[in-house]
Amino acid sequence: MVPFSDRHYLIPYDFVTTTKGRSERQQWNPDLAVLAARLHSQIQHEVLARLGSAGYDDLSPRHGAVLPYLDEDGIRATELGRLSGRHKQLVGRLLDELEELGYVERRADPGDRRAKLVVPTERGLAQMRLRDEIVADIERRHAEGAGGRAYAQLRDELRAIVAAGGGARVPARR
Amino acid sequence: MVPFSDRHYLIPYDFVTTTKGRSERQQWNPDLAVLAARLHSQIQHEVLARLGSAGYDDLSPRHGAVLPYLDEDGIRATELGRLSGRHKQLVGRLLDELEELGYVERRADPGDRRAKLVVPTERGLAQMRLRDEIVADIERRHAEGAGGRAYAQLRDELRAIVAAGGGARVPARR
Repeated sequence: MVPFSDRHYLIPYDFVTTTKGRSERQQWNPDLAVLAARLHSQIQHEVLARLGSAGYDDLSPRHGAVLPYLDEDGIRATELGRLSGRHKQLVGRLLDELEELGYVERRADPGDRRAKLVVPTERGLAQMRLRDEIVADIERRHAEGAGGRAYAQLRDELRAIVAAGGGARVPARR
Repeated sequence: MVPFSDRHYLIPYDFVTTTKGRSERQQWNPDLAVLAARLHSQIQHEVLARLGSAGYDDLSPRHGAVLPYLDEDGIRATELGRLSGRHKQLVGRLLDELEELGYVERRADPGDRRAKLVVPTERGLAQMRLRDEIVADIERRHAEGAGGRAYAQLRDELRAIVAAGGGARVPARR
């Protein structure tokens, strides 16, 4: 039996602060911020690498903010801003780049002649199809790894957490 | 009873491609890439906004690649590169910025005089403690929303998926 004063010595105060052994702790028990960053980075990475091998090697991670929301029927830039959570200035710059690279065109909206629609080109459509196939393939791999039911639950929980959103009111990112 | 040829007409081929109604589908059934991007962005956003209100308003999203791994005992830049999955050139630039902003110092490693350790300053330590508190607070909120057991399962699944990693061999990001 270790006397209290010695036990106190055996568990020095520093041990219970959060800043010692922090990098190691993030390895065996990563917090949600680290898990989210790693998951996002792994997926983004694999999607871009596989798109790159298929000839879409002119896309960069920043384009990932809008690429998942392109639509064959066209979509307004303001809607892309809302879906991606990015400022309209940033969305505008990304669309300029994607137009330059031949993935999208801006056309007059047939329903509202003052508005413009972002419409994928043939290259854009082919990229969209391949990107969606790659993501489906990643999900299939995770579902096989975790088991179908566990993966479906994970996805539902993730969707609920993401839908619940930040909670803290913070301005959109530039 | 609708004859087959008419049914075929009622379900036009375009309907079953994946590129029509895509932006809407990403709202009601976002894929894992979109979920991961949103979760990462929401957490990064809230952490930076709350750090900003507490006076750490000189940090930007890119610093988030290394900040979670800073350690009171110091850590090597190569280790930060490994943990963050970023190229050593990028890690070096981020550390230059964090040193400039007064969050870290580079000191000779007492265990190996040829090596350098990245050590947090007092400001760096205070930022680390607050950042970890904010992330813990976000996790508490999600655990309350999902229920403790469901949240623990989600976290375990996420950890397993992230540990299983990309699967496809892709080079580290610059």
